[in-house]
Amino acid sequence: MKLYIGNQNYSSWSLRAWLIFEQYQLEVEVEKLTLFSTEFYQTLEALTPTAKVPTLIDDETTVWDSLAILEYVNEQYLNGCCWPNDSLRKAKARAVACEMHSGFLALRNELPMNCRAKRQVVLSAEARKDIQRIDSLWVEQMLKHDGQWLFGDWSIADAMFAPVVLRFRTYGIELSPLAQQYQQKVLNSDSIKTWLKQASHEQDIIIEDEAGVER
Amino acid sequence: MKLYIGNQNYSSWSLRAWLIFEQYQLEVEVEKLTLFSTEFYQTLEALTPTAKVPTLIDDETTVWDSLAILEYVNEQYLNGCCWPNDSLRKAKARAVACEMHSGFLALRNELPMNCRAKRQVVLSAEARKDIQRIDSLWVEQMLKHDGQWLFGDWSIADAMFAPVVLRFRTYGIELSPLAQQYQQKVLNSDSIKTWLKQASHEQDIIIEDEAGVER
Ligand SMILES: N[C@@H](CCC(=O)N[C@@H](CS)C(=O)NCC(=O)O)C(=O)O
Ligand SMILES: N[C@@H](CCC(=O)N[C@@H](CS)C(=O)NCC(=O)O)C(=O)O
Repeated sequence: MKLYIGNQNYSSWSLRAWLIFEQYQLEVEVEKLTLFSTEFYQTLEALTPTAKVPTLIDDETTVWDSLAILEYVNEQYLNGCCWPNDSLRKAKARAVACEMHSGFLALRNELPMNCRAKRQVVLSAEARKDIQRIDSLWVEQMLKHDGQWLFGDWSIADAMFAPVVLRFRTYGIELSPLAQQYQQKVLNSDSIKTWLKQASHEQDIIIEDEAGVER
Repeated sequence: MKLYIGNQNYSSWSLRAWLIFEQYQLEVEVEKLTLFSTEFYQTLEALTPTAKVPTLIDDETTVWDSLAILEYVNEQYLNGCCWPNDSLRKAKARAVACEMHSGFLALRNELPMNCRAKRQVVLSAEARKDIQRIDSLWVEQMLKHDGQWLFGDWSIADAMFAPVVLRFRTYGIELSPLAQQYQQKVLNSDSIKTWLKQASHEQDIIIEDEAGVER
């Protein structure tokens, strides 16, 4: 398999798809393309209709979109273990993954993923509401699965929220204690450490994603 | 099961979830809430963290978000038949469903679903690009599945694009012949006829969703 991703410092959707391979040590060739470069569009336009990362090529199958990739890899290679077994919890995990996939636009705009930075931003009411919602979700799940992943075992929901963990760190967002505990678990995981290390070697600056002032 | 939906004239996400029940004649109680009304928020805030439609209640399980509902019903009640069997085509169907779920923002903003209206709008370049992308997708799939649904049998991808079919009708968007053929198939389907009939009995005007001038 071959996974196309963007700059690891900035590309939040890439991180989501990349995580499932890293979490399960699945063999995959990762090709990094500089976001918005000519090479980025030339490569991806030849492969997909949307020319976005992440994109996965598996033999004849091309999958674009992070959630579609996560669902595909989970079904094809991991026997469905990346959703809770129990149908009730699976439905909820999917609902929150879909919430992230389609929503939180204010948070996504105002707090762009920027792994290496430490920034301060002035947030809109909408973005504060997004943060509040995510804080409560994490707290609710930690009350059920103390010190574990959002739904106990690692799931696609954790992949979907991983970039948010990094955004909260970059912008110094204050969280409730249990939400902090989840954040810390993610930051301490090997896969996120690997991602951050690889991101730290990058030099490119994507000006659109440089929000806020140093802190 | 109980499915909460919004005004059928306007609520595109509601239509997506509603369709799977109608397409397979699954028993479900449908409760319609007037979008943005006090009752809407009071009812949904008691049930979900996002207070949006569609929301499905199935015994102890609450599923919010259209795509999560479609995946849930497909798995729980339909033996997975709403995705193509073949893994390659399933991956593609999911990718396009996810593309709709997370994207086409310009189209969604500039061409709000408004079933009963016939309008004309001036489109941004972004919205024209969205239309172009959807037109090509429909043409590509009709070349493979002449006169059928997007992936041969009816799938979640058809549910995701159904509101777009109605938007194109409202705003008189010109399509390629094969894309028109798909649009016509959707418009002729019993489930869409039922939806439009029910929508036609509604009186409420949601001013935010009234775009364009009469044609
Ligand atoms: N819904 C897509 C979003 C993917 C996306 O927007 N990726 C960004 C980078 S994080 C991208 O490729 N941007 C390039 C562009 O929009 O031209 C997914 O979930 O994968
Ligand atoms: N990602 C959600 C979007 C749902 C959504 O935005 N629904 C609209 C009506 S079509 C809504 O409930 N709006 C009320 C609000 O935003 O307050 C889904 O796929 O179900």
